[in-house]
Amino acid sequence: MTMAVEANAIFKQFKEHSVSEFFKKNRQMLGYSSMARSLVTIVHEYVTNSLDACEEAGILPSIDVKVSRLSADRYSVYVADNGPGIPRQYVGKALAKVLAGTKFHRNMQQRGQQGIGASGCTLFSQVTTGKPIQVISATSTEKYRCGISIDIMQNKPVITNFAKLDGIEMEHGLAVEGEFADVKYDTSDHGILEYLKRTALSNPHCEIKFTDPEGKEHLFVRALQSMPERANVSKLHPLGLTTNDLLELAHISLESRLSLFLTNGFARFSKGKLAELQALLPEINFDKDPKGLAWDEAEKIVSKFKDIKWLSPDASSIIPIGEEQIMAALVNILNPEQINITERKPKVFKGGFPFIIEAAIAYGGNSGKKNIEGYEGNILRFANRVPLLFDSGTCAITEAVRSVQWKRYGIDLDNYPVSIFVNVSSVYIPYSGVGKESISPESEIVDEIKLACMDVARGLQRFLSGKQRSKAFASKYKIVMRYANQLSSDLSILSGTDKEHIKEKLENIVALKYKQANGSDDENELQNEPTDEGQQQAAQPASQ
Amino acid sequence: MTMAVEANAIFKQFKEHSVSEFFKKNRQMLGYSSMARSLVTIVHEYVTNSLDACEEAGILPSIDVKVSRLSADRYSVYVADNGPGIPRQYVGKALAKVLAGTKFHRNMQQRGQQGIGASGCTLFSQVTTGKPIQVISATSTEKYRCGISIDIMQNKPVITNFAKLDGIEMEHGLAVEGEFADVKYDTSDHGILEYLKRTALSNPHCEIKFTDPEGKEHLFVRALQSMPERANVSKLHPLGLTTNDLLELAHISLESRLSLFLTNGFARFSKGKLAELQALLPEINFDKDPKGLAWDEAEKIVSKFKDIKWLSPDASSIIPIGEEQIMAALVNILNPEQINITERKPKVFKGGFPFIIEAAIAYGGNSGKKNIEGYEGNILRFANRVPLLFDSGTCAITEAVRSVQWKRYGIDLDNYPVSIFVNVSSVYIPYSGVGKESISPESEIVDEIKLACMDVARGLQRFLSGKQRSKAFASKYKIVMRYANQLSSDLSILSGTDKEHIKEKLENIVALKYKQANGSDDENELQNEPTDEGQQQAAQPASQ
Repeated sequence: MTMAVEANAIFKQFKEHSVSEFFKKNRQMLGYSSMARSLVTIVHEYVTNSLDACEEAGILPSIDVKVSRLSADRYSVYVADNGPGIPRQYVGKALAKVLAGTKFHRNMQQRGQQGIGASGCTLFSQVTTGKPIQVISATSTEKYRCGISIDIMQNKPVITNFAKLDGIEMEHGLAVEGEFADVKYDTSDHGILEYLKRTALSNPHCEIKFTDPEGKEHLFVRALQSMPERANVSKLHPLGLTTNDLLELAHISLESRLSLFLTNGFARFSKGKLAELQALLPEINFDKDPKGLAWDEAEKIVSKFKDIKWLSPDASSIIPIGEEQIMAALVNILNPEQINITERKPKVFKGGFPFIIEAAIAYGGNSGKKNIEGYEGNILRFANRVPLLFDSGTCAITEAVRSVQWKRYGIDLDNYPVSIFVNVSSVYIPYSGVGKESISPESEIVDEIKLACMDVARGLQRFLSGKQRSKAFASKYKIVMRYANQLSSDLSILSGTDKEHIKEKLENIVALKYKQANGSDDENELQNEPTDEGQQQAAQPASQ
Repeated sequence: MTMAVEANAIFKQFKEHSVSEFFKKNRQMLGYSSMARSLVTIVHEYVTNSLDACEEAGILPSIDVKVSRLSADRYSVYVADNGPGIPRQYVGKALAKVLAGTKFHRNMQQRGQQGIGASGCTLFSQVTTGKPIQVISATSTEKYRCGISIDIMQNKPVITNFAKLDGIEMEHGLAVEGEFADVKYDTSDHGILEYLKRTALSNPHCEIKFTDPEGKEHLFVRALQSMPERANVSKLHPLGLTTNDLLELAHISLESRLSLFLTNGFARFSKGKLAELQALLPEINFDKDPKGLAWDEAEKIVSKFKDIKWLSPDASSIIPIGEEQIMAALVNILNPEQINITERKPKVFKGGFPFIIEAAIAYGGNSGKKNIEGYEGNILRFANRVPLLFDSGTCAITEAVRSVQWKRYGIDLDNYPVSIFVNVSSVYIPYSGVGKESISPESEIVDEIKLACMDVARGLQRFLSGKQRSKAFASKYKIVMRYANQLSSDLSILSGTDKEHIKEKLENIVALKYKQANGSDDENELQNEPTDEGQQQAAQPASQ
């Protein structure tokens, strides 16, 4: 048959597009999927960048967030930090070039990853209000301000009104301010206040001041005066590699031999393991330049990795929050009656990726969520200390928490004022969604979270049953004491001894008996408790 | 406090990344999120491109798909079409440059949109197997073959083994073949066979041959010999514009005045409407060059658009599948006992985006889904004729279908062999997810789908109650006829008349009465039927 339109005519319309154009059309990919979520996304991106920058520079973060309402669907967002600032020659690309940054290529535990967050905010401000982002930066050597926007067609930064600043107060740090439309301020637990509260919970070394659209100030004070340990860039484990990864790394390697590329480049790759691999692949020349590695060879190597017994990946590059730090944060923010915390030992998923689960359960105080009937439990999800507010339905943490039979521990999640805190730390968090708001339910991760929840559930169970027993004891004590009063009166008449003297002795006997009964019960219960693998720390912060 | 690390040291690690690198790291964004889904995504991308290309060239599509198993997680995929082919100078960019294509910028109803699909396949093949995609192309002027891969760091195509071809059979068309690992062939209703079956359902002008990994051939024959009407590039409606859209279009406009840019550039923008707008915005000079339009002015114009009463957007640029076409396809693929089809009138969502809903319900034959207990109903979702297999939970179609009270229409979706077919046609489909597998539940769209379902449910209800009545009638008829036999015997004895003569008369009376009862009942029911706005066509295809 004949063609109505020839290929050459069709392809006259062929065009190329920039990645900025693409994300302009697909902004839901970056978290701009509803008015309320968009505003949280903006704050999330800037605060995440501030925390990463401060930690990298070794500075205790102080972050100032201000959200102001300009009209029904239009807000300004201001975020200032005391971080290292951005050198002038990088500020455009850091804030207004999609897919540029310092983090994309490092195998290291950090919050941000893709060099997309802040540029996404610039893009979103620009397409909804046409306004550039206003920036003030102070590094140790220069202070300046400027406006920043994106040339969307070229994916290039545009810098306007650049001016050097002298004598401003800021010692060092970065302040950004932008106007955004098609957004809405939400006071629910999917809103900015909740996001910042949870950020403070998982980052007790951080101080956050938030001024909401009504002008109300919320201060999350610093609970810890020391910096968290800094994660190292870690080597990849052989079992976490694809053929493509191995090949790309080989082709940019500076090593002279394939053997050295492997033993120096990857975790747990001893000379012994190299010898094992060589025995399995006699046809491959391990003395060759790694730049000459071919796909077939790389494929064989990756396939044989699975036949070798490796030491688990080193988890020293993963820095969890820490029990004391979580304790301080929960006391600071929730002021609960009881906290139980556990940090599990490092585990590995998919063979090559180490991770660490921390869980805590807080009871009473401001824990849980108030509702019309009283309270209900809530789940506070974190990945590398970043709060996850959205997409809870598809998250490993939700799945694991729901799979625990809380009632067996005497905990009624639907009616108790409890908050369950779970933080997953890893160099590589397997996010299930594009918005990085939920963790893929890998079975190893779900299992570890479940065990962590069971650890802390047992602790709370002890506290709650103790509490209930104390209540029952107090009531019995009161009743018996009433008899003691009457009895001492009667005995005084019969024996002629002083009533108060008899009463004091009787009361002492009663008190002592109940104390003994109470104490021994507790010990019995502890001996019957199943042992648990994780470390657990329990405390009643109210007594501190 | 002092900084441990200075900003200049941190930013030494600053790097830029290509969009190919980005999607290599985030392949779930492109639909490569599980092994089974990845394989469907590959077939989907190539078949979609083939259908769009054939339609653009005015060719009835014949598509040949072959999937072969190479090892447990490794398959080759071959897709060939009889389309216009790709001119040599575009083949690299069309198949191996992310964000390049002919479709991104056109406001037109089409399947593909972003110039990402085929390049995504090339990228996926490359990172999982290291192999280029093999291409054969024949346009009306040249035939060639080549291998194609991507320089990921540069997002540039790499063409290998280019060779001119002479004397091959292909008159015109494109054939691609690639090897993919980390994939799995799935025979469920989330698999390739089901995807192609549904593609044939919504594209009855298309012929698809599929050879599955076991070598079995599945042929979906062409049900219609005519091309579907071709959608036009349509003008945007003022109520579908953002400030940013208006400004960008103004800045590339070739019109000399803002007034002409508006009246010539947008749908429903008469001179009368322009006068209304001018009256609302006396401060704006509508004689100025649109290239000089400022953000503030554009913002005011877009805001005032909402105060003007516009004619609804013209839906002539939307081409639904058509009732006859759906009928032919359903007969062809499902061979049901009964089909009811409705095409609703064009409606508009968010003020500026017209859409058309088509729905059909098929009963019996191969409709529904077989399960252990018998049958259950299934929902066949389509957006611009493209089958949607995944993410049904978040889709407007699922939400609308589930909200219909099917039992009120005597339809038990859990146990009946019914298939509910819904196609949403629009220049702009509001996909809720990145993978374009579900339609955002905009209330206008959900409502229309629900009404369409109720239309076809009424039709099926009539058929089913007729069917049930016929069954009851047949049984009563049989019983009464038995009496007729006995009665005519007895009457013959009493009257002396011939038994057969009496019997014949009696039987005629019985038959006539029942026929009347049956017929009049039907009419009564029709008169009691609530009227519906949509056009509806019902048929019993088995009688064709």
